[in-house]
Amino acid sequence: MKEFCGTSEITGARFSIYPMSDRFVEIILSSLKEVDTSKVWMGTDDVSTCVRGRSEHVFDVVKTIFLNASKDGDHVVLNATFSNGCPGDSAGDTFMAEDSVLMNHELTKKISQEVATQFALYPLGIPGYMDVIMEQIKTVEQQGVFNGGVHYASRLDGDANKVFTALESAFEGARKSDSSHIVMTVTMSANSPTRKEGQ
Amino acid sequence: MKEFCGTSEITGARFSIYPMSDRFVEIILSSLKEVDTSKVWMGTDDVSTCVRGRSEHVFDVVKTIFLNASKDGDHVVLNATFSNGCPGDSAGDTFMAEDSVLMNHELTKKISQEVATQFALYPLGIPGYMDVIMEQIKTVEQQGVFNGGVHYASRLDGDANKVFTALESAFEGARKSDSSHIVMTVTMSANSPTRKEGQ
Repeated sequence: MKEFCGTSEITGARFSIYPMSDRFVEIILSSLKEVDTSKVWMGTDDVSTCVRGRSEHVFDVVKTIFLNASKDGDHVVLNATFSNGCPGDSAGDTFMAEDSVLMNHELTKKISQEVATQFALYPLGIPGYMDVIMEQIKTVEQQGVFNGGVHYASRLDGDANKVFTALESAFEGARKSDSSHIVMTVTMSANSPTRKEGQ
Repeated sequence: MKEFCGTSEITGARFSIYPMSDRFVEIILSSLKEVDTSKVWMGTDDVSTCVRGRSEHVFDVVKTIFLNASKDGDHVVLNATFSNGCPGDSAGDTFMAEDSVLMNHELTKKISQEVATQFALYPLGIPGYMDVIMEQIKTVEQQGVFNGGVHYASRLDGDANKVFTALESAFEGARKSDSSHIVMTVTMSANSPTRKEGQ
């Protein structure tokens, strides 16, 4: 299993940023330049980027890269899979010793960005996984960004900082369940022309 | 649980097509126009599209839309979550009565498109989910497109038709396991400039 996963404490995210623009390379490179990744392990290939470390820093880095990419008004989508507790190797484990001070909070708290989000939680290894999901949906419902269920996902709408807070709380809540391996998928869209037209 | 999932026989995919181009609207609309969706239930919102029906038709429709979008050389990425066996509602169940003749096979078999793919299988509800995953990785390894594991995913490279065959076989193989609810996430990239430069 070595090659597929991580240790039980480390959180990881495999994600991509998709700018629907001829300038996609420039937008992606610029968003990567303006993020502090000193508290995470990070690797990029031609399909996606992987960030690993303490959970709060993984969320901080993914959020910052997405906000950097979308803040100039381009239609940008984030796809991310967050994972915690997958049995396996230890690359990036040294970053678990970092403290919990977020490196990009001063930057992101100033960015106001409306987003439309669909996410799904997959608590693995336990028969009662649907109970864990429903419990976390209830938690998210209290945070003011929940906008109902769709097939295979739940919808969150609102400011990106608030939506990320809700996502992180659902992920952390699920980590406290009987499941020792939590996966969460997120699709987050900013500046969509469809959205602007109210469709 | 009604709003989140489907019945045990129906397969669904929630997916998006991301053309990294100023012409993204035109590319998406045109790819949707040139696909026969008569054997599936389909719904689109501002974040993604959901297709539901017999498994083979769901894969056929998603593959065709992606190949339509990428065949003119634009850098296009597909993100998809395939799901089978999620307890819940019945929208689209009438399409389960369709026969298994693929509606888009004549179109897609002529399209040759190199892709780079990362995918992950999540067999839910059972303690032995890692065994199911490893078994399906072995199946995929025999199909000539497997290119190793990365953190949280496995990599497939090669012709899109062959890669889709491998993905479908892994999904169908996992459906035969003890897990009654199978989720598979796929990120597939065509015409990436990073890829062309061999990075």
